[in-house]
Amino acid sequence: MSPDLLPELAQEIRQEIIDVTSQKGGHVSPNLGIVELSLALHRVFDTPKDKILFDVSHQCYTHKLLTGRNNDKFKNLRQSGGISGFCNRFESEHDAFGAGHAGTAASAALGFAAARDRLGGDENVIAVLGDAALTNGVTFEAFNNIASTTKKMIVVLNDNEMSIAKNVGAIAQYLNEVITNPACNRLYSDMNSFLKKLPFGETVIKMTENTARDAKGWFVPSPFFEYFGLMYLGPIDGHDIPLLERYLNYCKRATRPILLHIITKKGKGLDAAVRNPEKFHGATPYNVVTGESLNTDKSVPNYQDAMGTNLLKFARNNEKIVGITAAMASGTGLSFLKKELPGQFFDVGIAEEHAAVFAAGMACRGFTPVVAIYSTFMQRAYDCAMHDVCLQKLPVTFCLDRAGLSPNDGATHHGLFDISYLRPLPNAVVMQPKDEDELADMLWTSINSGMPSFIRYPRGKGVGVKIKDEPARLEIGKAEILSESDGKVCVWALGNMVGEAVAAAKSIFEECGVKIGVVNARYVKPLDVGLLLKCAAENATIVTLEDHVAAGGFGSAVAECLCASGAKCSLDIIGWPDKFIPHGTDVKAIRTQFNLNTEQITSRIKAHLA
Amino acid sequence: MSPDLLPELAQEIRQEIIDVTSQKGGHVSPNLGIVELSLALHRVFDTPKDKILFDVSHQCYTHKLLTGRNNDKFKNLRQSGGISGFCNRFESEHDAFGAGHAGTAASAALGFAAARDRLGGDENVIAVLGDAALTNGVTFEAFNNIASTTKKMIVVLNDNEMSIAKNVGAIAQYLNEVITNPACNRLYSDMNSFLKKLPFGETVIKMTENTARDAKGWFVPSPFFEYFGLMYLGPIDGHDIPLLERYLNYCKRATRPILLHIITKKGKGLDAAVRNPEKFHGATPYNVVTGESLNTDKSVPNYQDAMGTNLLKFARNNEKIVGITAAMASGTGLSFLKKELPGQFFDVGIAEEHAAVFAAGMACRGFTPVVAIYSTFMQRAYDCAMHDVCLQKLPVTFCLDRAGLSPNDGATHHGLFDISYLRPLPNAVVMQPKDEDELADMLWTSINSGMPSFIRYPRGKGVGVKIKDEPARLEIGKAEILSESDGKVCVWALGNMVGEAVAAAKSIFEECGVKIGVVNARYVKPLDVGLLLKCAAENATIVTLEDHVAAGGFGSAVAECLCASGAKCSLDIIGWPDKFIPHGTDVKAIRTQFNLNTEQITSRIKAHLA
Repeated sequence: MSPDLLPELAQEIRQEIIDVTSQKGGHVSPNLGIVELSLALHRVFDTPKDKILFDVSHQCYTHKLLTGRNNDKFKNLRQSGGISGFCNRFESEHDAFGAGHAGTAASAALGFAAARDRLGGDENVIAVLGDAALTNGVTFEAFNNIASTTKKMIVVLNDNEMSIAKNVGAIAQYLNEVITNPACNRLYSDMNSFLKKLPFGETVIKMTENTARDAKGWFVPSPFFEYFGLMYLGPIDGHDIPLLERYLNYCKRATRPILLHIITKKGKGLDAAVRNPEKFHGATPYNVVTGESLNTDKSVPNYQDAMGTNLLKFARNNEKIVGITAAMASGTGLSFLKKELPGQFFDVGIAEEHAAVFAAGMACRGFTPVVAIYSTFMQRAYDCAMHDVCLQKLPVTFCLDRAGLSPNDGATHHGLFDISYLRPLPNAVVMQPKDEDELADMLWTSINSGMPSFIRYPRGKGVGVKIKDEPARLEIGKAEILSESDGKVCVWALGNMVGEAVAAAKSIFEECGVKIGVVNARYVKPLDVGLLLKCAAENATIVTLEDHVAAGGFGSAVAECLCASGAKCSLDIIGWPDKFIPHGTDVKAIRTQFNLNTEQITSRIKAHLA
Repeated sequence: MSPDLLPELAQEIRQEIIDVTSQKGGHVSPNLGIVELSLALHRVFDTPKDKILFDVSHQCYTHKLLTGRNNDKFKNLRQSGGISGFCNRFESEHDAFGAGHAGTAASAALGFAAARDRLGGDENVIAVLGDAALTNGVTFEAFNNIASTTKKMIVVLNDNEMSIAKNVGAIAQYLNEVITNPACNRLYSDMNSFLKKLPFGETVIKMTENTARDAKGWFVPSPFFEYFGLMYLGPIDGHDIPLLERYLNYCKRATRPILLHIITKKGKGLDAAVRNPEKFHGATPYNVVTGESLNTDKSVPNYQDAMGTNLLKFARNNEKIVGITAAMASGTGLSFLKKELPGQFFDVGIAEEHAAVFAAGMACRGFTPVVAIYSTFMQRAYDCAMHDVCLQKLPVTFCLDRAGLSPNDGATHHGLFDISYLRPLPNAVVMQPKDEDELADMLWTSINSGMPSFIRYPRGKGVGVKIKDEPARLEIGKAEILSESDGKVCVWALGNMVGEAVAAAKSIFEECGVKIGVVNARYVKPLDVGLLLKCAAENATIVTLEDHVAAGGFGSAVAECLCASGAKCSLDIIGWPDKFIPHGTDVKAIRTQFNLNTEQITSRIKAHLA
């Protein structure tokens, strides 16, 4: 394609991204920002032979449109049966590596490069990182290893001064200094004009390379990335396709690992997204003109907002309550605290491990930190939650948002494993509320418990109950009987599955006249062993119900308890199967696919009456 | 104490460390290297008010000797009932923060500093890092947040050019350039002489500070740490107590976060340790003169060596087999590969997450990576094992060494949780061999399986069986019947507990004439459901036996399976209780303390015959 036509193509791609995401939701601003880079990458490099690895990979839409996932495929983005919103090796050979969490692209790319070097191949390996990746430790672990491992690897740093929220920390400040330094701007602007007049501008860039190499040392000029053995080029305009192509072509020929720093505008092409890139990072369907969300029903609060507003309420009266987030103030509801009590709020960047250890440090000094984090990202901080918090028995509360399904994002974002990996931890208290009012109670109880606590709750709207003016202090490890059984079946349901159990019991009673017992388990750990064994003695069957994998989950804890006591009832554990659950249109669609919708659960419970 | 007496005190402390570790084992070289720094820290700072956080904290012996844990207490270092080899908040108020894994000190210290700032306190917070901490991502996550969080925090970088093995990567090379740059040496040597003539040398260091601050920017002098907003001082001789005191006193008064770079000699004061710092990083009892280990029985190989030698054997015939370690070539047995086939060996530094993702990258290109890692450190790479390896169904084999007890190191080093957090992962194969020959079989099977695999095995000696010349290809998910029962009890034992089960069965038969069935489970996942249900149908009781916590472990998987099938037998899950298990003199002592020695297990099994 003639270079003259590229701006038009970029415009068409933007329009397609806006059309689809405004109807289906998705990652809007990151994708609008990277259209030109994606085009330039695909013009300079040849996938699938060359390997392009996108960090987090939620910015892969243009890449997907350019590699066969256009038209109807793209229109079904993030829907059941449609393409994923992330790179996925099973979806296309052009997706070199899947991702969903930040920080892994450089690390995986180095694996590709090491493999190529050993096989004597000549393919290019390109890791595309957002600046947010530089707040994440895995990226630095990789950077430390690049130069000693390979001579040929390209890192493109797509700098839009944002991760999800505005970036924080020393590296963000450094990048900002680089961009705003007048000397740097003049230098690179001159060089860019000059370069455009030369074929590939190799001579000049070669000169830069030598200068940078000579510069490395002590008390002599040396940009940050040179310390990692990466040749640094940039910053350049990431929306100028010919310029990007020239630089990428040089990178292709470089004889040492190289980092190309490009500057882009998150949300470019959609005014609403440029104005509010955080809201449009991951958006629900929206009005293209006004940017307003099409889902405007605010009558029932989201769990995240219920957490955030209640935490703020508690924090107003206790300056030792602090909220900590890893770049997710909005998504976790900590934005309420950030706005009103910024001194009690910490955003540490996409650095989940640091978030947990930092919280432990504050807890040692008498603070009561609440780390608000998505369940899926908690996996990153597992060792820290174990050693730094639980082993030291420190009063840190982890609020695990998005526990259960994150339907459109899929496998990398579902929070379906947290119970399995948290309940073996000594000293840990693990719980899930049945509704947003109980979430407030659990938050209050945990903050006042002095124990390492993990409260999991699902993405999206609460049940719609009123939140009490004053939270109740729950008894830790006590379940709640919601309905008595007549001796056949008692359902122990956890969190958002309590409503399902109640609905199932109602429908079975109406159909068969049998009373199904329903218990709101509340605590996975400590389990209410007394009540459980009483139910086990009084019922032929215990059914457990959880929005979590069955393996090692809440039902598994019940199974262990029943075995230890020699209970004679039978047990049916209902949870997600031993599969990575894909993305889908909505929670109901995915549940139906896996036999976990209300009717299917009801049938399975009813089968125990036969 | 008069400064003149300090060298003598340092000498006495070194002697005490050598005396005790030569008899009891322990971390020798890191502790011998940090005697002077510990003395200087305690002379300049006032614990417990001031907070000194040691990264990993295996270098805390002098600190412990100086804070009340001398004489008999120190003589019982790492023994049952004695003091821990690591900092421990429950042991002393002078241990500000516990640790056992690398990379957390700066992060926790920042939590202490943030807490102090909010409370208006004036205590000092000092994080003491080895250079190895700079290979670990958590440290960088913390560094990125220091300058934006506090104006007052001290990082002491104790640079001995070693983590456990010789350090790797770009940062190690950078530090080496700093140290060896003649300009730098001259500059600091001049400054040091000059400083010694001034009270605290504040004027001069102040000057340095200003220079460094002015220097920060683009294409102007700026050492690496300045990019993180840390004022840099150093490098200075870390064995010169008066010099250390002067610098630390300045650090105390600094008005911005500061990093003091000191150079020490790992193993200083013990020739054998200086000659071989890696061997003496963590040592078993040794001869003080020759440095030779006192445990010289080599008749039975360690599991780690069995793994390492067999991996080397397989790798000789297949260049696509590569071994990856996070700074533990020796400890994991990968040193055999490193020595003979260095092109198939990667040491990535203490960077477990990168190790897992890097392996995933290589696996995408047709390699068969074996990541050899201690079970406890696997926790650091949990999310990467899940998303990068299991979700993408890549053929990476994780060899989880030290699964089970690591008796002298204790809670932070036991590998007692891996089954709980790994078995819920879809696509994962999780297994444990009963002996070193079966380990070779499992390694061979995993490498050839094309599946994400996790092989766990204990620290220390194997069983003493002969390793076959050619490994067997095991059927994945198949258990092995070792003895038939007469219908009362069948024990499903995992890995190193198979021997215990066999011993128990023998002793029960001899005493009661009852035949106890014994099954070598081999695979936790996939579980041999067919054989398990057969055993459940034929026996009144199934007993499971594992060197792992009971919660969510192998027995829990068996419980889930029996519940799902409606099996009527009873189940007794024997594993470690819901407690962090402390350190102790040896495996037997700790097992006895928790009712898990051979006799106690036998009694528990026998009780099911009543």
